Amino acid sequence: MSIPLMNVPLSGERVHVTYRLAGDEKLAHEKAAALVLEQTVEFPAELVPAGDIREKIVGHIVAFERADENHFTAVIDYAAEITGGELAQFLNVLFGNSSLKPGIRVEKFELPPALLEKFRGPRFGRAGWRARLGLPKRPLLATALKPMGLAPHALAELAYQFALGGIDLIKDDHGLADQPFCPFRERVEQCAQAVARANRATGMQCIYMPNITAPADRVIANARFARAAGAGALMIAPGITGLDTMRLLADDDSIALPIMAHPALQGSFVTHPDNGISHYALFGQLARLAGADASIFPNVGGRFSFSRAECASIVKGAQVKMGHVKPIFPTPGGGMSLERVQDMLELYGREVIFLVGGGLHTHSPNLVANCRAFRKMVEEF
Amino acid sequence: MSIPLMNVPLSGERVHVTYRLAGDEKLAHEKAAALVLEQTVEFPAELVPAGDIREKIVGHIVAFERADENHFTAVIDYAAEITGGELAQFLNVLFGNSSLKPGIRVEKFELPPALLEKFRGPRFGRAGWRARLGLPKRPLLATALKPMGLAPHALAELAYQFALGGIDLIKDDHGLADQPFCPFRERVEQCAQAVARANRATGMQCIYMPNITAPADRVIANARFARAAGAGALMIAPGITGLDTMRLLADDDSIALPIMAHPALQGSFVTHPDNGISHYALFGQLARLAGADASIFPNVGGRFSFSRAECASIVKGAQVKMGHVKPIFPTPGGGMSLERVQDMLELYGREVIFLVGGGLHTHSPNLVANCRAFRKMVEEF
Repeated sequence: MSIPLMNVPLSGERVHVTYRLAGDEKLAHEKAAALVLEQTVEFPAELVPAGDIREKIVGHIVAFERADENHFTAVIDYAAEITGGELAQFLNVLFGNSSLKPGIRVEKFELPPALLEKFRGPRFGRAGWRARLGLPKRPLLATALKPMGLAPHALAELAYQFALGGIDLIKDDHGLADQPFCPFRERVEQCAQAVARANRATGMQCIYMPNITAPADRVIANARFARAAGAGALMIAPGITGLDTMRLLADDDSIALPIMAHPALQGSFVTHPDNGISHYALFGQLARLAGADASIFPNVGGRFSFSRAECASIVKGAQVKMGHVKPIFPTPGGGMSLERVQDMLELYGREVIFLVGGGLHTHSPNLVANCRAFRKMVEEF
Repeated sequence: MSIPLMNVPLSGERVHVTYRLAGDEKLAHEKAAALVLEQTVEFPAELVPAGDIREKIVGHIVAFERADENHFTAVIDYAAEITGGELAQFLNVLFGNSSLKPGIRVEKFELPPALLEKFRGPRFGRAGWRARLGLPKRPLLATALKPMGLAPHALAELAYQFALGGIDLIKDDHGLADQPFCPFRERVEQCAQAVARANRATGMQCIYMPNITAPADRVIANARFARAAGAGALMIAPGITGLDTMRLLADDDSIALPIMAHPALQGSFVTHPDNGISHYALFGQLARLAGADASIFPNVGGRFSFSRAECASIVKGAQVKMGHVKPIFPTPGGGMSLERVQDMLELYGREVIFLVGGGLHTHSPNLVANCRAFRKMVEEF
């Protein structure tokens, strides 16, 4: 049979994706040549029909250069229309099948204006969230309610102490879901009330940020419940729910709360430098495109292994110009102690949320005093 | 403050997870000791409250042994209740935070009976899908509609030819979403009609299986539309939508069609043998737990890099005893030609779906004849 050609004109707008390819020049170029087919027509080159499909639907290698001794950088562009103007299919074009091939990493991407317009991105971003909190300048201070196993009233008591001590954002630990020993609704109600009670005592505006990560049919319901109960922001793990579920949450006008992305289950994208998606693109660009207002990642020097350079790259991805898509807060978690605050302020600057966990508990036996000491350090910056 | 203990009794049922840990014995044991905290309380050991939390919520290392010169295997068990009886939080317990640490791989898992009961798993499984198709014994033959860029009527014409040639399952290529040059609804209607027309001509029961991967709020609607339009099964990429969205789809009694999982964007879990999730657990166990009736993966010898042993391990994960959770079809894709059919039958046996793409187009210029030749080979097995 002869395969009919498509007859829908394309705009000419193209998505640019930069890939890092491991191997010598020959192998790396083979990988680039495979990418333009694999991410589009998935067809052997000789079978691709001539005309628009071969010329415009198949990706184009627009740059190819050596990055270091055994790596090359290829910039490939794709017709904007193949993404269908949606995040799910954009992810598929970006890295769907090629994620299955070793030695290919997505470094960064650029969307043309007409495609960017399809994405609302973060509803608040840095400036919007700061305005809500009445905190125009200094870094924000966050902590987590833990450990898993505590009943709602015990977590609420912790939340009260943190709020009393001047923490800005109190989130659920990401392991708090809807367990029988700590049901979601009870926890959210009690913690939100505890934080409100502390705010009445302090006159501050601490917010409670529950983890709404849940089965696919309960995420939005959890968010609505949390909002009604008094939560001031929401945390979700897009590696578990899918990035587009976070996008849906961010786009929902009936929820309209700031969103913090947690990196659970996303680690395999970044654990090997030859594979996956760069820290910059994953925790910066993609988190923003999917509507996060803040993006948690493991801080350098903690119990994880992100390097200082990787953390710095996330800061860049969180604020690189992406049309109207707002810059967001990098949120380094873990590895923070009072002794390291100065160093972290140098690395991250003031447009950051510091997420302090164990450090708040270990500094001294007085939790409220520890919170105040952290806050003082940050306020003095 | 003193942290109150939880007071909800636990059943004693435990989830067992086997991790592969890279490093010498000391490092590997440190990783195991970190896992029991990281996947549960996320708290330094010295801060974990004594009592139930320390004894039962924190994971237990129940086995630790050398795997090879530089790898160890640790079996860790977790209280079943910390998963909340749901897939999303189970994934979090399995690998959430530890995915961010290099040198840790999930090898396999075992759920206790009371937790397994929370999962329906595949609605059909091998036997159920075979019964629907009236094909009790032989391997099934699938192909994909491509290339991206063709209009719905052109894809429908291809579908007609495939169905006429005796292909059992005709799926959308995974890059077909809802693009302006090929809108989802038009494509699904036209392809379903074309296959029905061919079935009337042949008397066979070929089915059309559209790709319903979509924005989070459109997946279920797409599935319902596809069912109403005459689709006989559905394809979804859980790496894009989240595994729990596939579970939701499988659990939906108003849809009730067999589901084929596509591996797009899941590759980073398996591209490095020290990190991520094993092929066995990801494409076998997790696909089943999340309701897939068939699990696509790149076949050995094709343009991807899965080894013969990795493909064989997926076959095992697709059928290992998991309580009532049905065995499913491994679906090796790519790299299949008429010349390789015999070898593939030896590797996969008859409980398999062969997904043939380019091979159907390249064997000879006559597409219908090529389909018939593939089918004959498989029928003769």
